[in-house]
Amino acid sequence: MSVAREMHMANSFDPGRAADLSPADAQLIARRTRAMGAAYRLFYDRPVHFVRGEGVWLYDAEGNAFLDAYNNVPVVGHANPIVQQRVAAQLGRLNTHTRYLGDEVVAYAERLTGLLGHGLEQAVFVCTGSEAVDLALRVARHVTGRRGIIATAHAYHGTTAAAAAISPSLGPNNPIPDDVELIAAPDLARESPDRAAAAFAVRVREAADALRSRGHEPAGLIVDSILSSDGLQGTAPGLLRGAATEIRAQGGLYIADEVQTGFGRTGAWWGFPQHEVAPDLVVAGKPMGNGLPIAALFSRPELLDRFGADMRFFNTFGGNHVSVAAGQAVLDEITERDLIARAATLGARMLSELRGIALANDSIGAVRGSGLFFALEVVDDEGVADPTLAAAVVNRMRADRVLISASGPQANVLKIRPPLVFGDEHAPRLLESLAGALSR
Amino acid sequence: MSVAREMHMANSFDPGRAADLSPADAQLIARRTRAMGAAYRLFYDRPVHFVRGEGVWLYDAEGNAFLDAYNNVPVVGHANPIVQQRVAAQLGRLNTHTRYLGDEVVAYAERLTGLLGHGLEQAVFVCTGSEAVDLALRVARHVTGRRGIIATAHAYHGTTAAAAAISPSLGPNNPIPDDVELIAAPDLARESPDRAAAAFAVRVREAADALRSRGHEPAGLIVDSILSSDGLQGTAPGLLRGAATEIRAQGGLYIADEVQTGFGRTGAWWGFPQHEVAPDLVVAGKPMGNGLPIAALFSRPELLDRFGADMRFFNTFGGNHVSVAAGQAVLDEITERDLIARAATLGARMLSELRGIALANDSIGAVRGSGLFFALEVVDDEGVADPTLAAAVVNRMRADRVLISASGPQANVLKIRPPLVFGDEHAPRLLESLAGALSR
Repeated sequence: MSVAREMHMANSFDPGRAADLSPADAQLIARRTRAMGAAYRLFYDRPVHFVRGEGVWLYDAEGNAFLDAYNNVPVVGHANPIVQQRVAAQLGRLNTHTRYLGDEVVAYAERLTGLLGHGLEQAVFVCTGSEAVDLALRVARHVTGRRGIIATAHAYHGTTAAAAAISPSLGPNNPIPDDVELIAAPDLARESPDRAAAAFAVRVREAADALRSRGHEPAGLIVDSILSSDGLQGTAPGLLRGAATEIRAQGGLYIADEVQTGFGRTGAWWGFPQHEVAPDLVVAGKPMGNGLPIAALFSRPELLDRFGADMRFFNTFGGNHVSVAAGQAVLDEITERDLIARAATLGARMLSELRGIALANDSIGAVRGSGLFFALEVVDDEGVADPTLAAAVVNRMRADRVLISASGPQANVLKIRPPLVFGDEHAPRLLESLAGALSR
Repeated sequence: MSVAREMHMANSFDPGRAADLSPADAQLIARRTRAMGAAYRLFYDRPVHFVRGEGVWLYDAEGNAFLDAYNNVPVVGHANPIVQQRVAAQLGRLNTHTRYLGDEVVAYAERLTGLLGHGLEQAVFVCTGSEAVDLALRVARHVTGRRGIIATAHAYHGTTAAAAAISPSLGPNNPIPDDVELIAAPDLARESPDRAAAAFAVRVREAADALRSRGHEPAGLIVDSILSSDGLQGTAPGLLRGAATEIRAQGGLYIADEVQTGFGRTGAWWGFPQHEVAPDLVVAGKPMGNGLPIAALFSRPELLDRFGADMRFFNTFGGNHVSVAAGQAVLDEITERDLIARAATLGARMLSELRGIALANDSIGAVRGSGLFFALEVVDDEGVADPTLAAAVVNRMRADRVLISASGPQANVLKIRPPLVFGDEHAPRLLESLAGALSR
């Protein structure tokens, strides 16, 4: 596979093929490239340009409504009025940092750790999942006195230097240092869950040996609890248990990346309990403030005790009053609207309907899902990954005003992941649009 | 100096000496330690607990007003109503990411780069100064193909692993890797500006040699444009010019850390032009959204072109609509209320009055300032740094309800840095409180 091919992000806009753009959008894209540079990417062959959102809907300047079946950040809905009111009220009252004493951040930490259980009694607040992952790595390396980190072969964990170093999905030019060892994710399309789990645990042991052969003891294993960038491979219960046991046997920590799975995505508050593991460290982010930047590292107290005995930590905006107000509003909305049970129930029904669509379409191979997170593998006549068709389906649905995307190591996995306020009334529109895009 | 001594952060609360606390605050601190762990620090011998803010004032639960002469984040004032209105309106409209097309983030990038000039034509948005510094290091190392970074001996640049690695002020347990070389900051209390500038440039050359002797070519030099953690040593015009020239002669980039100085602090939009350097990369953060998490990396286009040709970059919350709305409101407020000219004028007057206080008090040595950022060195009878007295002054002023802090390599530098809405009417209260605290 060439470098150019790998550098192509699934569902990214190619400025060289900008034929269909309105003059206004073409001009805006030119200005954007000039002022924001070459590292940014837009989605879709023909990028979308929204001016308003409400619930599961996004609207363009002409008032066209797009059904959002992709965005996991606005988990309680675009322009959620409760989040808006709480944030506005807090902005009019106070917004400072954690070096002054305040009830709000303490109460929020207590509420979150209460929801986590499993001995994860402490929270440290930052602003992004990347910062939470970066801090998890700092803590793991500091308390173990070791450097080696094991991650999966198409993982994405963030954009700081340390997080990018364990994010091979960023492409072949993203350097993976010699204290990081990558292992193949389980492949549920080709292995039974039991065999996949056992083989994954063996790969953790082999990776520990490989790190040692390069002079690095293993400090930890980090896994996205649903393995989303690896193609949503984490949907089978218990899949990660053996790997967690193995990294501990090797003297390392188990770090659960819950940035994708936290806050109800899979029909439960968190993804890790499904795998019957009690992580040493948990990182959460994206949906935590419904779009306000807030993220956290959760830890067993003895780890932060050891880290904190040697190091202080402060993040200027982490745990500020306004982000905490947004975070509390999200927890209230999830609870009061019973969004987690709804994600489980509706998710199970949608998964069954998606499997029906797969049966009716040779171009869909394996279908996986957990709560309101679904993956469909797009394949050609020989059953081989077909990223071109996957991209075509994503763009046909965009033309039909339904938003999904594609991912996975071969960019052939359709990724469906709506806000949790997605309801029974929205599912038919999504399923019809998908069926229509596949039948063309 | 012992490890325990170095680990003591200037102006940090010592839980072992919590005699004066109200029962409610003592209980809250216990809950906080339990739920947030040992790495967090509170300010002051007796921590403050605020429930409301307005302009330059912070209020505790009893309604006592504290004059804020410390916080640089709420640059247009606590609970600024323009920021509140714009953020609330945007939250009710739309808040998404940069993979959809939007006018707002492009217009903001154009406005900021227009304010920067000096060929810094591109902006990449993140959420914190730490993330901006981390990305600056990634870009510098990627485009130069080199690893070595030079920073000052008591610098603070952030909390990600890569940013902490160039932040020796985090203490003796914070590891500095062998691709980082630390150099003494200029010392304006003991050298003339010209000699300090020349000696600093020589140290950059020596550091480049030291890095090479360990197998690392120098990728860049990063300096806070006012050297705040090094004791506010960057107040003399032109001080950093020779160092910037030297790092370029060594084949590295010059990175200006404007997290402290950006957005008017020194009586100008940015700190670097005072030093007559045109940086390759600039990082900004803290005051950018008046407390909403937003930060940025600014770059010459050819650097981001090279980085972006190999790597994509995405930060989920970076440049989102709500953070951008806050950022634009801050720029509007700074401009419409003429806060930068005011910082220059009032700052010059206050500096003169602070020098008067120093003349009247043997315990104040050197006084430095630029705009609304001031440093006073607290010394004993022999002129030696006196961190104990500095801490006492900070805590006496806290008892008098005026907020300042201490910093510097020896923790003896009083740090005064009010929101930019600090006015003529507030200065006397600060100066009287300081004079009173010194005379006790």
